[in-house]
Amino acid sequence: MKTLTSLKNPVVQAARALSSARERAARGACLLDGEHMVGEALAMCPDAVEALFVDEARAGQYAALLAQAGQHTQSYAVPAHVLSAIAQVKTPQGVAAVCKLPPQRPLDSLGDKLVLLENVQDPGNVGTVLRTLDAAGFDGCILTPGCADPFGPKTLRATMGSVFRVPLCAVQDAAEAARALAARGYATVAAALDGQPFYERGPLGRKVCVLIGNEGAGLTPQAVAACTHRYRLPMRGGAESLNAAVAAAIFMYELMNHEGGMER
Amino acid sequence: MKTLTSLKNPVVQAARALSSARERAARGACLLDGEHMVGEALAMCPDAVEALFVDEARAGQYAALLAQAGQHTQSYAVPAHVLSAIAQVKTPQGVAAVCKLPPQRPLDSLGDKLVLLENVQDPGNVGTVLRTLDAAGFDGCILTPGCADPFGPKTLRATMGSVFRVPLCAVQDAAEAARALAARGYATVAAALDGQPFYERGPLGRKVCVLIGNEGAGLTPQAVAACTHRYRLPMRGGAESLNAAVAAAIFMYELMNHEGGMER
Repeated sequence: MKTLTSLKNPVVQAARALSSARERAARGACLLDGEHMVGEALAMCPDAVEALFVDEARAGQYAALLAQAGQHTQSYAVPAHVLSAIAQVKTPQGVAAVCKLPPQRPLDSLGDKLVLLENVQDPGNVGTVLRTLDAAGFDGCILTPGCADPFGPKTLRATMGSVFRVPLCAVQDAAEAARALAARGYATVAAALDGQPFYERGPLGRKVCVLIGNEGAGLTPQAVAACTHRYRLPMRGGAESLNAAVAAAIFMYELMNHEGGMER
Repeated sequence: MKTLTSLKNPVVQAARALSSARERAARGACLLDGEHMVGEALAMCPDAVEALFVDEARAGQYAALLAQAGQHTQSYAVPAHVLSAIAQVKTPQGVAAVCKLPPQRPLDSLGDKLVLLENVQDPGNVGTVLRTLDAAGFDGCILTPGCADPFGPKTLRATMGSVFRVPLCAVQDAAEAARALAARGYATVAAALDGQPFYERGPLGRKVCVLIGNEGAGLTPQAVAACTHRYRLPMRGGAESLNAAVAAAIFMYELMNHEGGMER
């Protein structure tokens, strides 16, 4: 394991630069902070982990993690202040990694149960949707360019590692993607406050994609119009709407557990 | 409408002090930022709004809001930098208010459908639970001292105003509250990763309280042991758990929409 002590070291500078979304896209890599996230990446895709940075004072603590490193992973011991700068947090957890972004999946390669996020801007919401989607057993997430970057630091934290397990697909336009999915036999469900009551729906079939819109504005009219179904969740009290990640979760768990033929 | 120009004015200082949880508890008041939150407070409890602060350059924009002020509300025009200091945000929305905290409700006065949060520490999670609870038509939220303050700024933002509509009850101990509720005929449901499959449950009856635990540790063993039921939500993918506010939402919407006799 090499030791790096300077913030000016090019390896350190390259890792720090990944705090920028533009740099992540250009490099096709992101920065992971903490044992849980790094461990998930090493478990799911060890060869994607390009560099591991361990607090030199706590290296022994991470021996098991270091042993999981892929054959192309370079490991570095660094002082706490360097790790802090790399991880972009005041109190780094002791380990960070540079990891290649998982490849995007083509729309027509995704499974039967999908979520499409249109302009969901809050990183916590995007991350929470990915975590819930993984837990619910959904098969993939489609994101428009207006969504928070799934590989930004706040999103990654909210995913709790699920980002490495969920197939992701970037599309330019939600309406166009909805039409393409409908043509392939998916029920495309717009979550819309003026939709039909969701709990009174008929069977939607095996292939379903739920579309969730922006936190303030909801789905674009174009996206809603492109969907085969539009449903609302009941609002019984005074709240006007649900948090985007909460709405997505209710749709997903309902469809997985109350749809004819699904395992219970 | 009076004009206040100095950060040293005692009214301004008293409003600013409400950024501290201790001060909120001592004064029995909180600070609301933005037209939506202030509007909800004026709609639900106009006499609880003690002071309104409006950006002097935008006062005309808030004429309708100012007209809703309770008879004991004092309105003030302030320069933008004073409003910014009061609202504790860099870009204040133009209006802020000091509002009395709604009275806590006794445990035995709450309705049939309840959520109890034990040590849910993240303000966003507590706020999101209150928003969802309001939307689902649940009747109240019980909080232990380890929870994020429902009237802190981050929590308030996440509630989207629902905090003024949801009956709140502070209890010292989750297990004790669960036993008291069970004695009054409630099914007390511990959300626990080692519980029974929730979607295979029998009818729980009209009176239900769902207990949600800390983000990292879950419910305390004491709270789980005090419950009449313990259930888990299915985890089909690789995720180990759900976000606390997401889990609460799935339990609430399921119980409101798939429980014998509830309106659909």
